[in-house]
Amino acid sequence: MGERLERLERTVAQLRDQVEIGQLLAGYGPLVDAGDADAIAQMWAVDGGYDVEEWSMRSRAEVRAMVASDAHQGLIAGGSAHFLGPARIHVDGDTAVAVCESLLVVHRDGRFLVARASANHFELTRVDDLWQIAQRTTRTLAGDEQARLLLRAAAPEG
Amino acid sequence: MGERLERLERTVAQLRDQVEIGQLLAGYGPLVDAGDADAIAQMWAVDGGYDVEEWSMRSRAEVRAMVASDAHQGLIAGGSAHFLGPARIHVDGDTAVAVCESLLVVHRDGRFLVARASANHFELTRVDDLWQIAQRTTRTLAGDEQARLLLRAAAPEG
Amino acid sequence: MGERLERLERTVAQLRDQVEIGQLLAGYGPLVDAGDADAIAQMWAVDGGYDVEEWSMRSRAEVRAMVASDAHQGLIAGGSAHFLGPARIHVDGDTAVAVCESLLVVHRDGRFLVARASANHFELTRVDDLWQIAQRTTRTLAGDEQARLLLRAAAPEG
Repeated sequence: MGERLERLERTVAQLRDQVEIGQLLAGYGPLVDAGDADAIAQMWAVDGGYDVEEWSMRSRAEVRAMVASDAHQGLIAGGSAHFLGPARIHVDGDTAVAVCESLLVVHRDGRFLVARASANHFELTRVDDLWQIAQRTTRTLAGDEQARLLLRAAAPEG
Repeated sequence: MGERLERLERTVAQLRDQVEIGQLLAGYGPLVDAGDADAIAQMWAVDGGYDVEEWSMRSRAEVRAMVASDAHQGLIAGGSAHFLGPARIHVDGDTAVAVCESLLVVHRDGRFLVARASANHFELTRVDDLWQIAQRTTRTLAGDEQARLLLRAAAPEG
Repeated sequence: MGERLERLERTVAQLRDQVEIGQLLAGYGPLVDAGDADAIAQMWAVDGGYDVEEWSMRSRAEVRAMVASDAHQGLIAGGSAHFLGPARIHVDGDTAVAVCESLLVVHRDGRFLVARASANHFELTRVDDLWQIAQRTTRTLAGDEQARLLLRAAAPEG
């Protein structure tokens, strides 16, 4: 019975990682559209990074500053949805990689339009039993081969 | 070994709540676009509510009536996708809160357009071991601060 | 304690099926937009099928050929996001059905537009302890009743 329990514990730990990382990422869109700079900042490791097109943030503090910036607050004041799809997640011990696509939908002149479709690549790390983003890289899917390459990490390992 | 088993049971119960609520919500878009009034009604508690912009439903029966209405059946007959993103879910015993964003994509004049992007806030309750919607509140993300406030519930507790 | 362990094993096996199938499907969009024909092919059973509008593929090799085709590689070279929503999944032993909606967002003339919203119905099968797609059927949600009927499989069993 000890062996069955051990096997079960391993499986449950794997499922828990999947669910916890999925939940972490499921919060990004709602919280960034809410303009909740503190909650978004907490998703990142203290020294985590976020590289999105021309903008490169190098710490949790810089991510917080981005959400609190006039540019971002202006965007969400007009109406926006940072819409992330379900992520493909590969866990390896205390690190993980997650990949998903995202749409930025904005409200402009009384209508909604897709301003951008992007590839998202997350490197995650477990800190004090909590998953955090170590590095996020986001690239617009407008023909850029680098954007497409990010998506390849969704492939099964091995 | 009894203690390990107990801890495992607690973790598994938490994962099960996450998966069950995620699955419940994953059914909404497909079923409402299918026009399946009975299946949508079953998602709500008998006395559950659904508050969406100017429309306020106060019971499972009123939710069923909305799906069966000429307005809704006309919308889906033309082609529509009520597209909900992955939900951030916080469970507390037999109640839970889930938050996600959604897009309403409609087919009109031979083209598809995003008619609306919305914030969704669900209060859920466990009835006879089954998760049901006690209250859903949906607000268009077109600059309304109330809509953005709904999204803040995606933040981690504590 | 043996009974509690057995019950736990059954529940964990169910959760694992949900997570594994969800993860399989979460890879489709990123990998098809990456143009990774081999990784997409591996998602299908060797004799699996994919029926999408006028195109009917009858094997893993034909799915691989579709991704590798000039038509598909041209589409993704211009910029595309095959954006699948969270799937409603019903497992029955070694087979399962999953239903989700999807958006095809394309980059054209410097802008992004929703080219298509679709209903997706997956039949899955467990082969050598791995979930694979036995049959996928995709229909545009542009008023077609057959498309809406596909979505009804999201309803709870029984």
